[in-house]
Amino acid sequence: MLQSQLFCKTKKEAPKEAEAISHKLLSRADFIEQTISGVYRFLPLGLRVLDKIEAVIDIEMLNLGAQKLYLPTLQNKNLWIETGRWDKIDPPLFKLKDRHQKETALGSTHEEEITDVVRKRIKSYQDLPIYLYQIQDKFRNEMRSSGGLLRTREFLMKDLYSFHVSENDQMKFYSEVKEAYFRIFKKCGLKAVTVEASSGTIGGEISHEFMAISENGEDRILICKKCGFGGNIEKVGELEKCPDCKFSLEKKNSIEIGHIFNLGTKYSKKMGANFIDKDGKSKPITMGCYGIGLGRLMATIVEINHDEKGIIWPEEVAPFKVHLIPIENSQKVIKTTEKLYQDLQKAETEVLYDDRNGKSVGEKFADADLIGIPNRVVISERTLLKNCVEIKKRSENKAKLIKLNQIIKNVR
Amino acid sequence: MLQSQLFCKTKKEAPKEAEAISHKLLSRADFIEQTISGVYRFLPLGLRVLDKIEAVIDIEMLNLGAQKLYLPTLQNKNLWIETGRWDKIDPPLFKLKDRHQKETALGSTHEEEITDVVRKRIKSYQDLPIYLYQIQDKFRNEMRSSGGLLRTREFLMKDLYSFHVSENDQMKFYSEVKEAYFRIFKKCGLKAVTVEASSGTIGGEISHEFMAISENGEDRILICKKCGFGGNIEKVGELEKCPDCKFSLEKKNSIEIGHIFNLGTKYSKKMGANFIDKDGKSKPITMGCYGIGLGRLMATIVEINHDEKGIIWPEEVAPFKVHLIPIENSQKVIKTTEKLYQDLQKAETEVLYDDRNGKSVGEKFADADLIGIPNRVVISERTLLKNCVEIKKRSENKAKLIKLNQIIKNVR
Repeated sequence: MLQSQLFCKTKKEAPKEAEAISHKLLSRADFIEQTISGVYRFLPLGLRVLDKIEAVIDIEMLNLGAQKLYLPTLQNKNLWIETGRWDKIDPPLFKLKDRHQKETALGSTHEEEITDVVRKRIKSYQDLPIYLYQIQDKFRNEMRSSGGLLRTREFLMKDLYSFHVSENDQMKFYSEVKEAYFRIFKKCGLKAVTVEASSGTIGGEISHEFMAISENGEDRILICKKCGFGGNIEKVGELEKCPDCKFSLEKKNSIEIGHIFNLGTKYSKKMGANFIDKDGKSKPITMGCYGIGLGRLMATIVEINHDEKGIIWPEEVAPFKVHLIPIENSQKVIKTTEKLYQDLQKAETEVLYDDRNGKSVGEKFADADLIGIPNRVVISERTLLKNCVEIKKRSENKAKLIKLNQIIKNVR
Repeated sequence: MLQSQLFCKTKKEAPKEAEAISHKLLSRADFIEQTISGVYRFLPLGLRVLDKIEAVIDIEMLNLGAQKLYLPTLQNKNLWIETGRWDKIDPPLFKLKDRHQKETALGSTHEEEITDVVRKRIKSYQDLPIYLYQIQDKFRNEMRSSGGLLRTREFLMKDLYSFHVSENDQMKFYSEVKEAYFRIFKKCGLKAVTVEASSGTIGGEISHEFMAISENGEDRILICKKCGFGGNIEKVGELEKCPDCKFSLEKKNSIEIGHIFNLGTKYSKKMGANFIDKDGKSKPITMGCYGIGLGRLMATIVEINHDEKGIIWPEEVAPFKVHLIPIENSQKVIKTTEKLYQDLQKAETEVLYDDRNGKSVGEKFADADLIGIPNRVVISERTLLKNCVEIKKRSENKAKLIKLNQIIKNVR
């Protein structure tokens, strides 16, 4: 894309209310913008990253054998009355009345909806297991929302729900989801560990949070570098040695990026979601649920992948792969840049070409560092004498000279 | 995909409340399900069609030079106060209060939001024109919602907004959008005409509706088969001759599938969205907006493309391209089917393979006709003797015998 056409106005200053570094950088680079407390717009660059994250998640969900659907925001109150959560869920539901004074609410999670979908369609053990997920807006009536995309009142969430004949079967799938989550987070440039967590008003016996390891996160956890153990201090106390391998534990302020739950039969019993088992008896379906907040994940990527100049996007979720910056206006430089621009597009490499007039080279470089595209390609007279351009990875300090015919290989 | 794994339970009966044929068929084929009045779930087959429609729209938006973003549902009341629409828009907004008793509303359209986005970023005529769109949930507090996906209270909408230096420029783009819309509807298997429309509380001087021509639609329009003229009877009266070419007009009950508006400076003046023109003067930006409801479009496709047995999806938006149905259980038939299944997937053709046990051939055929995948491939001992399978287009009555090695060519 031509940068002169891109709808993006970078800013020198972050919004006054921004405290988290991800909020500051994503605002300054014009990926996001707050409208009211905890509610954000995703501008074109921001949506490109969201779409990339969605694609990473979709692939892993597909590999798990999950099917995608799309449930509504406006909730059927009766379903929430069935589970007793209409007034009990925390944070509370955003409730509203329609023109007929009929009460509804905005979905903050979809256990009621999905259990209703499944109980109408599942009759027998032969119909199980089934895995259903969606990527859809959630609304949470939080008392406080700050930290940019880390704590919002409206957010895109991937919520996966699984339905099984037994707890054994659910726990097997639970492990498979764990592995899939680790792959998702790795593709997003994050090191994660799991810690036991409390289940809150979602419920169930067992739940785990995925924590991205960070020095500056909002939560402190204990991690073991030897065996990968992660510990929630609230659960395990201020341990010094790893309970698994006795190695010394480190304390890291980390960020929650995913939460998975063994729901048992909590919802199926209350909502009568049963199946006929092999022995001919009717039994409640065993359930699990597994969430990732996409905006929170995007913010965490920035919290962990940035420097003082701006964002450093991991390749897989970057808004573009290559940032082309010609630093002179000579015919040779412009012609070479335009040829590169076309060649990269033909090679299906997403490229942003900084063709803006009236911007100094310094301003262009500052914008490039702020926006954080992984590969910066600088085209200049000096290097073209050697038939080369300069490629610098956003994550590295040094640039390399690369022959023109080797560029595509070097940025993929 | 294996049909035994597909989360889809077809039904013999439509829901009692269903009146529109699209509501009946989409429910029976398990694409959608109503939860509360005018609010629908999209099950896996339904979401596949929505995603296809979204892809068709995205391509045409990209060709227009539009950039995609994602605006929130929860609205900033102050913006709606600026335009005076907080209490005036019809149907009224779904309003609600948060925990701090602060009022917000669910977005039913996004002129306020997008004008705020643009006024913060556009300074000069050099920044214009700009075209921004999203595909996002809308909420309308309708008094009545019936007709399945034809009239809902929560729905996915593509809303495109354009910003220009002059009305001339906007009208030029308006024509380009018209052409893009015709291409979108054609890919969706619909013949459309435009008619002049009233602008309601969206506003502006000129607006056009796109009408899918149908005998059974909710609106009656006049169309001219010679020159393509379309007339809204409320606007032009009960004309008998085409005002353009004098040919006889026909009256067709049709369905609205898109609405485009010349907004002029209605929003930019009220919200101070100005630019500095070439002459150095500050002027209000001229705007247009252009909407397509995705669920309504999906329902209209079904209203117009069906028969007494079920849906007939146009290729471009079908949930799968090919439906493989082996009608015997012999090793030869099953092996051939599985080979075909793999070959089609390798050729990136989306295929549903009816591998279900315990269903009669009659039941399989009835489900196939109801679901409406464009190419049905039947594998049987009889035709395999000739090294052939039987291919029937859902839109045609007769099947053809096709050699095994010619199948991929015949279903693409």
